[in-house]
Parts: sequence; C-alpha cells; structure tokens
Amino acid sequence: MKDFLKKVKEDIYQYLVNNQELFSKDRVISACHGGKLLNELVEFSGRGKMVRGGLVSYCYKLFTGQDRHPHSIALGALLELLQSALLIHDDIMDQDELRRGKETLYFQYQKEGLGQGIEQARHRGVSLAICGGDVSLFWAMDLLGQMDLNQEMSQQLLERISREMVYVGLAQMEDVRNGHRKDSVSLEAILNLYRFKTGRYTFSLPLMLGAILAGKSRHIQDTLAHWGELLGILFQIKDDYLGLAGDKDKLGKPLGSDIREGKQTIYFRYLMDSLENGEREGISGIFGNSNAMDSDLHRIYSLMQHKGIYQKVQIKEREILQELKTSMDKEHWVTEEIKMGILALHHYNQSREK
Amino acid sequence: MKDFLKKVKEDIYQYLVNNQELFSKDRVISACHGGKLLNELVEFSGRGKMVRGGLVSYCYKLFTGQDRHPHSIALGALLELLQSALLIHDDIMDQDELRRGKETLYFQYQKEGLGQGIEQARHRGVSLAICGGDVSLFWAMDLLGQMDLNQEMSQQLLERISREMVYVGLAQMEDVRNGHRKDSVSLEAILNLYRFKTGRYTFSLPLMLGAILAGKSRHIQDTLAHWGELLGILFQIKDDYLGLAGDKDKLGKPLGSDIREGKQTIYFRYLMDSLENGEREGISGIFGNSNAMDSDLHRIYSLMQHKGIYQKVQIKEREILQELKTSMDKEHWVTEEIKMGILALHHYNQSREK
Repeated sequence: MKDFLKKVKEDIYQYLVNNQELFSKDRVISACHGGKLLNELVEFSGRGKMVRGGLVSYCYKLFTGQDRHPHSIALGALLELLQSALLIHDDIMDQDELRRGKETLYFQYQKEGLGQGIEQARHRGVSLAICGGDVSLFWAMDLLGQMDLNQEMSQQLLERISREMVYVGLAQMEDVRNGHRKDSVSLEAILNLYRFKTGRYTFSLPLMLGAILAGKSRHIQDTLAHWGELLGILFQIKDDYLGLAGDKDKLGKPLGSDIREGKQTIYFRYLMDSLENGEREGISGIFGNSNAMDSDLHRIYSLMQHKGIYQKVQIKEREILQELKTSMDKEHWVTEEIKMGILALHHYNQSREK
Repeated sequence: MKDFLKKVKEDIYQYLVNNQELFSKDRVISACHGGKLLNELVEFSGRGKMVRGGLVSYCYKLFTGQDRHPHSIALGALLELLQSALLIHDDIMDQDELRRGKETLYFQYQKEGLGQGIEQARHRGVSLAICGGDVSLFWAMDLLGQMDLNQEMSQQLLERISREMVYVGLAQMEDVRNGHRKDSVSLEAILNLYRFKTGRYTFSLPLMLGAILAGKSRHIQDTLAHWGELLGILFQIKDDYLGLAGDKDKLGKPLGSDIREGKQTIYFRYLMDSLENGEREGISGIFGNSNAMDSDLHRIYSLMQHKGIYQKVQIKEREILQELKTSMDKEHWVTEEIKMGILALHHYNQSREK
C-alpha cells in the first residue's frame, strides 16, 4: 500500500507540473505575475505525502483491480490542490511559520515584504496568502473543468467535492471556535470534529471519488463515506496519541504541544472526566498555557497513566474499529479484497510514527 | 435594464433562501453549527445589488428574447455567493469594518469574541471569516453540482467559472502587492488590473455564462469576454472618478480616500506623468498618507484641474468605448438588440453616482 501511494504520488506531481505548463502562456496569468504562485503551489503540494490524492487511485483499484483510471491521477491532483489551499489558510489561522519542512506561504510573503521595507508586512503576507489559497481552490476546480467526462460522472464528482468542501470549511470554523473557548467541549462534539473534519475530508471524499470512477452506486459511495468517518476518528486519535507519547524527533514537533495549545482532544476530555474537582483545579492552569513547563506536562502525563486514560481511549478505538468491521460485514458487495484494502488503511495509520 | 436587474435580484435571493432550506436537516452542517453561517451568507448576499448575478439572465435575454432560462437564476445565485466570498476575504485584506451598510464578517466575529472575553479576538475573527469565505466559495460550486445540465453545458460552465476565479485571485494578489508598493505602477499595469480584476470578473464571466445557457459558441463567449474587459476598464475609471469628484453622501465614503490609501489609479498615473520633478516632490508626502489633511487633498485636486487630467482620462475613455464599438461592428452575429444591450451596460455605469 505504501509503495502504491508512493508511485501514485509521482504521477500526481508530474500531472501538476504538466498542467502548470498549460498556463505558462496565458495572458491574464502573465499580466498578473501569476506564474510564480502556480509554481509555488506545485512545489508545496509536492512536499506533502499526497495520501488523499493517492486514495482515489487506491479505491479505484480495490473495485476494479486496475492501477489507474484515465482520470484518477487528475482527481488526485485536484484533491492535493484543495489540500494545499486549506493548509495555506490553516497556517494563517494557526500562525504557524513552518509547514512540510519549509516556511509557510504567508510567512514567506511577510519576509519578502520586510525585505522590501514595506510597512504592515505581516498583514500583506496574510492577505497574499488568503488569495493564494483561493487560487489553489479554483485551480483544483479548473482541473475538473479540463476533464472529458460523461455527464453523470462529472455531475457526481462536482456534487461530492463541493459538498465535502462546504463541510470541511464549517468543521474548520467549529475547530477555530473550540480552540478559542475557555470551557471544555463534550466528547460528542470532539468526535464529530474527528468524523467531519479529519474523516470525511481525508478518507470519505477520496474513497467516494474512486468509487465514482469505478461506476459504483450512490449507496456504495455513502457507505464508503461512513467508513471514512470511522477511519478519520481512528486517525485523529492516533495523531493525538503521538502528540502525547510519540517520538518528538520523528514527529518534528515537541511533545505536549496539544496541551500547551489547549487542544480539545479525546485524551483531554477523558482525563477531565476522570478527575475529582480538586484534582481538576490543580491542573487547570496547564491546559492552554503556552508557557507551561515540562514539569507541568509531566504532571499531566502521570495523571493520564494513573487514571488509565490510555486504556480508556483504546477501548473507544476498539469500539470504532468494531463498528467499521460490522458495517463491512453487512454490505453484500464487499469483497475480501475491499475489506482487506480498507483495513490496510487502518493498519497503515496505526503503524505510523508521525 | 435597472428594473430587469431588480426583478432578477428578487428571484436570486429567493433561490438562495430555498437552497439554504435544503441544508437545514443536514447532519454534518447541524453538528458544526453551520446553519448560522449559511444564513449570514444569504443575508449578506441579499444586501448587494447582485449586478453580476443579474447579468447572466440579462445576457441570456439579449440572445434569446426570453427573460429566464431554467438555470439562469441558479447561476446568478452561484455568482453572488462567489462575490460574497471574495468580499469577505477582501474585507480582511482591506481591514474594513463596514460593508453593504453593516459590519463586515471578520469584524462581527471579532466583536463576538471580545464579548466572550476571548484573547486574540481579532485573530479569531479573521480566522473564522477566512473559513466563512471558503464555505461560500464551495456553496457556490455546490449549486452547480445540483443543476441538471447536459454534459457540454456543465463542462463549459465549470471551465469558465474556475478559470475566471483563478484569474480574479491572481489579479487580487497583484492588487495587494501594488497597494503595498512605494514606487508607482505603469499605466499598462493599472489598466491590466481594471481589465482582469474588475472587467473579466464583473462583466466577462456573467456574460459568458449567459451565452453558454443560450447555446452560443466559444468564439462568441470569448468575444463577450473581451467586451467585458473594456466595460470593466470604463467601470473602474468611473469608480475612480467618483472617489475624487463624486458626491460623498451618495458615495458613502469620504472623497479622496483613494489618495490617502495611495491607490494606483489611472488619475494618479496621469497626474504623476504630467508633473515636473519639483512638483512631484512637492506632493509626494500626500499619496498613501492616511493622515493627509483636506488642504493637502485640495492641492491634488487643483493640480488635476490645472494639468488637464480629467480631460486626458476622458480621451482614454473615448478610446476604449470606440474599441468596444468597433469590435461589435466587426462581429456578424451581433444584432441591434445585442449592441444596444451591451451599450446600455456602459450607460448604466456612466449614470451611476455611487
């Protein structure tokens, strides 16, 4: 699976490079000096793992046994441009200066502005990066416009992509609101974000696109979307775990940053629910405190151990995995190949160290 | 024409209200509290004049004589959601607190955050509004996904919309860069922005969509796009004029704000080119100085009079109008009706006071 995704990534990257070529003589883009941004978008997309884009071909292969559909690479490229757009906008929201090992887009523009002695260089950087993300969103849709598809397929692809992008935008807003809240968020609300932000966008959408290319029914597409939500929850829980107990060198960020940022994770929720009032007050100054010391973090870690939080989360994970398996067993169209292929996504997720 | 656009606006608004209804029971949108934003987007769109959206039906009528195509209102609604998205993002870039007579979206969210005692309330407001704009962009595309169109039409619509949105994003970046520049920009670069930002987006795109619905050829669509660029230049020059010499009460903003903001307009360019070195230095501290006094502005106004700038710009306007008329005369498919209809857009523009 890893090798398959790696090979698809090369094809997607090449597709983007070729597509960018198409624009090199466009009079509007030249007049607006747009070539530079398109170049940056290709380069930025190429630095990602392109898992979302690769999953379109992966799912298509599960259904048909064939490595490629004439449009599976183009759709993968489309998803990767959407992903780049969202990351560019996210980095503004998170005020992150690094992404995929290089400076984030707004930060690059900010530095460029500072270099030119421009006042409000940060605001200019943010403004340019908002536009840059918007361009990436519409370049993605432009790829769909370039494809020669039959009416039904084209309509279904557009419908699924647009709807899921509305969802991810709304889920991101909810995430921003939660991130700024002082009070804590219910388990249900936390899992909904895992489902609707991570799950539907990372798994459901690419799986549905692969199924559409394979000519599969709306029912099958919807079922895949449901599995995608469950895979998303498991994926996000793994992410949260790595942030608490992973290897910081492999992760590329310090452990405990979720705690310092006050991120509303399932671990945080379970811990809070296990504490007595007195205990809760004792650690209330640590969550969301960007200056929390390592000794503070260690108090949290040992409380997590002591209260059996890791085990509790594992029980939840097993429940979700069981829900996925039960759903797969219920659907008559699920071959052994499909079942193994979907579970491989979960295993890939479980084995990752970053 | 004004009455026609007014009637279409009512239909577009109603279309958006009905479409929003469709989402009211959606589980993802409910879970993310997305109903509130969708509501705000409809309300915000409804406060605009909806000229872009109306032009789709207007152009369709020029070709067919019929007031409506089954999809002309939906496409108008699509353009208005795109427009709302761009305005939401623009307001962040321009740091404007008012738009269409009410508070801008980021500013509303900022106030909401302040009311809840949230730190970084401004940053939270900006973050939420970036997402809000993204949702509006994809709700627009979702409308296209909902339409039942034949393959050719659906492909052409998607292609034109996506490409023009890539263009407007790149043109907006160029505009942001120019706005932060200290040196001045060439006449060609200024006119390119009028052409590619104002023109193609405000006129070319809706006219092309109307022509697609009327089943017109790519050549006709491209010709309309060219006319749209010329109409855009004339529209933007009128805008610049009103900002200098209009009626501030009707305009809703103080005169001379373009000067205080240092906006690169055709008037500014012509003035600079008419001045001797000594004169140029004498007023160099006024452009882009947000604290410039009224007496400073009056120095600029009288220099404009003295150097005959208004006349020079008028000559340029007449040139552009002539280019439009010559192009219309050259195309054999242009009926008297179409010619009058396109010129009516110019007259409508010329007669406006805001």
